Amino acid sequence: MIRVLIFNEYLHEKDPGCKASEIYPNGIHGALAELLNSEEDIEARTVTLDDIETGITEKILKETDVILWWGHMAHDRVPDEKARLVHEAVLNGMGAIFLHSAHKSKPFMRLMGTSCSLIWRESDDLERVWVSAPYHPIVRGLDNYFELKGEETYGEPFGIPTPDETLLIGWFTGGEVFRSGCTWQRDNGKIFYLQPGHETYPTYYDRNIRKIIVNAVRWVAPTFRSTDVMDCPNPPKAHKF
Amino acid sequence: MIRVLIFNEYLHEKDPGCKASEIYPNGIHGALAELLNSEEDIEARTVTLDDIETGITEKILKETDVILWWGHMAHDRVPDEKARLVHEAVLNGMGAIFLHSAHKSKPFMRLMGTSCSLIWRESDDLERVWVSAPYHPIVRGLDNYFELKGEETYGEPFGIPTPDETLLIGWFTGGEVFRSGCTWQRDNGKIFYLQPGHETYPTYYDRNIRKIIVNAVRWVAPTFRSTDVMDCPNPPKAHKF
Amino acid sequence: MIRVLIFNEYLHEKDPGCKASEIYPNGIHGALAELLNSEEDIEARTVTLDDIETGITEKILKETDVILWWGHMAHDRVPDEKARLVHEAVLNGMGAIFLHSAHKSKPFMRLMGTSCSLIWRESDDLERVWVSAPYHPIVRGLDNYFELKGEETYGEPFGIPTPDETLLIGWFTGGEVFRSGCTWQRDNGKIFYLQPGHETYPTYYDRNIRKIIVNAVRWVAPTFRSTDVMDCPNPPKAHKF
Amino acid sequence: MIRVLIFNEYLHEKDPGCKASEIYPNGIHGALAELLNSEEDIEARTVTLDDIETGITEKILKETDVILWWGHMAHDRVPDEKARLVHEAVLNGMGAIFLHSAHKSKPFMRLMGTSCSLIWRESDDLERVWVSAPYHPIVRGLDNYFELKGEETYGEPFGIPTPDETLLIGWFTGGEVFRSGCTWQRDNGKIFYLQPGHETYPTYYDRNIRKIIVNAVRWVAPTFRSTDVMDCPNPPKAHKF
Repeated sequence: MIRVLIFNEYLHEKDPGCKASEIYPNGIHGALAELLNSEEDIEARTVTLDDIETGITEKILKETDVILWWGHMAHDRVPDEKARLVHEAVLNGMGAIFLHSAHKSKPFMRLMGTSCSLIWRESDDLERVWVSAPYHPIVRGLDNYFELKGEETYGEPFGIPTPDETLLIGWFTGGEVFRSGCTWQRDNGKIFYLQPGHETYPTYYDRNIRKIIVNAVRWVAPTFRSTDVMDCPNPPKAHKF
Repeated sequence: MIRVLIFNEYLHEKDPGCKASEIYPNGIHGALAELLNSEEDIEARTVTLDDIETGITEKILKETDVILWWGHMAHDRVPDEKARLVHEAVLNGMGAIFLHSAHKSKPFMRLMGTSCSLIWRESDDLERVWVSAPYHPIVRGLDNYFELKGEETYGEPFGIPTPDETLLIGWFTGGEVFRSGCTWQRDNGKIFYLQPGHETYPTYYDRNIRKIIVNAVRWVAPTFRSTDVMDCPNPPKAHKF
Repeated sequence: MIRVLIFNEYLHEKDPGCKASEIYPNGIHGALAELLNSEEDIEARTVTLDDIETGITEKILKETDVILWWGHMAHDRVPDEKARLVHEAVLNGMGAIFLHSAHKSKPFMRLMGTSCSLIWRESDDLERVWVSAPYHPIVRGLDNYFELKGEETYGEPFGIPTPDETLLIGWFTGGEVFRSGCTWQRDNGKIFYLQPGHETYPTYYDRNIRKIIVNAVRWVAPTFRSTDVMDCPNPPKAHKF
Repeated sequence: MIRVLIFNEYLHEKDPGCKASEIYPNGIHGALAELLNSEEDIEARTVTLDDIETGITEKILKETDVILWWGHMAHDRVPDEKARLVHEAVLNGMGAIFLHSAHKSKPFMRLMGTSCSLIWRESDDLERVWVSAPYHPIVRGLDNYFELKGEETYGEPFGIPTPDETLLIGWFTGGEVFRSGCTWQRDNGKIFYLQPGHETYPTYYDRNIRKIIVNAVRWVAPTFRSTDVMDCPNPPKAHKF
């Protein structure tokens, strides 16, 4: 059983003036939890800014195999200490999936060490997402490409360390391109970033996006877990020449 | 002219009970500054924990092409804000060279995003340093390998993101191996980590180490510099299909 | 002085029925030689399928710093032995730039070790080329992106080893994306692949493409050159514990 | 069931004057087949230079999930066409494990595109093999390091493309270091290189080496298989702006 924790800042969806409130009446985290809990080998729970104090703790992260992270307008309201706990849990082996505007979230930026910057525009572009690494388990079941009728436009340059693997590259009608699906290994943890998922589009109901997310949960789930990755051991001398 | 700033915490060398005080009477930063200032195209100044408040500022970093960093027992005494300034300057293009125990310094850890952990031992091992990337400008002028009569032992696993290039691999008589010279690109900045340089050995007087450091200063020096790498521009739509 | 050798199969341009004969009356190699010879630090000569026997030899390659390669319909007519010589010269340090359909040329495929496959279409798409690594010397002087009014469409997946750096990503009106500028280090040699350059478009007269090619010649030019990279030395034992 | 094909040139073991004949009376391939066939999920068969003509065919490779390759003195006797078939099968998704002196085998060199050179010496060094990527499934069950009482010495520089992951780094009493376990993705195929395994030492009976080989078979086994990776599809235009 893969134990998933879904973090969502959960602000747009509570704003009656924002389309997100209609599209995701139970929040983006709710939609993702419903998706993941429909898989037999996955067990998902959620946490939002409202209950982050008790919902993200060292103990809970130790019992979490994979974290999903969605944040946008309130990255700053995530306490540094919570970001540090998530960061360290990933280095010890917890898998992590960062969604859409989480590219500027504290845990992602800590893991990347770069600006995580990009260009962006809300202009209702269609996005065509190409599979650039067809062999990868995360893209299992997809065609060569799929399309999203509308998405926020993200564009290069994307300020990330060279990904271990670039799985998806997005094409937008407005003229932009973007590395839309990327993986990194950081110490014992696997990381996946997925670009689509703006709050005003029903992206997380798209069947291709759902396939990717379920595949990704399985792929980043740890096969090895440590507790002391931050330590620097001081072993005795072995060879006495 | 390459403008270099050398940071050294400068504690060991002021402790009369520590060998470092004899080996580096003017501090490690003093020895490095003397070396670099003897090169016609390099101009080096120094900063220590004592004057970090005025010696590392946004203005000074903008006028710095390359920073060298040596720290060991007082990483925590470097203010977070100073680490942030250095981090951001590197992402905007400033080159950075991290020396020896700076693997656990705040700016290096921020740039890597990993544990930066390793195993270590002070047992007077001889280190043989192998050149694993003979083509690289940083190892220009070296033989296939060189030896340091004594060094602190560092060993794998080294908790770093896969380096762009692994230039040096160290072999220790005690039985350890270590990726002793590594490079990374992070946004617009070039980074080099060099393992040898324990304060109780005259490593920074070794002619091979000196060659590496001078070569590295030239190699990480920026050819491109930005000021706004952290921003996410919001350009208008170009193609209106 | 950087000594450049430009290989072009030179078939399309000799076919009066092909647009290439009008666009490149002196051949693509002629246009590239004119461009490069207008730079003070570059000295370019050319070779085609007609004189490959005497124009690509071990001696000539030793006196060549950078090779440019354009081929399309006659990759098979390049003798294996010539491909081997070029391959080995690159491993010994000669820089190499592969242009457009040279993705399926013998020397490129030998260097990559992969399929080098892609999807393609001739449908007069406009291509917008994005700079994804703004810090890199090869893209010096370019804006965030530039456009080519017409180009052959190339699309992902591109069957290459993960590039060391992806400098350019192409966007096509037809809906495709492509990693249009990529670098690799192979032993002592630097390699650059550049996608635009179909024979029926005046791509090699475009000022941005010309900048890229001149920059790339300087960037892949060797700073280190060996003669025996294929050998496996058998040194005596150094440490006798 | 993972279908494995073990290729061994099988020459040293048939030479009564060579220690290999005592250590591996049924050949290295025999020892490896026995090991792998003792695993419930693996089914291994073997092929040597004697029956390579019928033992390595397009049909057989299509029915092979993972190939293991051991060769040393007779790389040249492997027909180019057989090397090509193996190369292409890997690009289409077949996993491949190259053992010890197979670093200069035709299929490995084709996949790498580099010199695959190294330094070497037969001087009965002890090798200590360090795990540099403890999270990786291939090193599951190993301690931080293990030792081999005697091995042929291999040393850096190793002329390979930067590995996707460097799992093992070897330390030799003679003073050398070596990237002893490396992985690469090439199109749809996973590749693992493992350095220990000289014919005059009982390396393939070592319990750690055996763990690595069994783990590696499972890790390189394909999750995706294509048949046409060398093709360049020519799809119609999708978007007509």
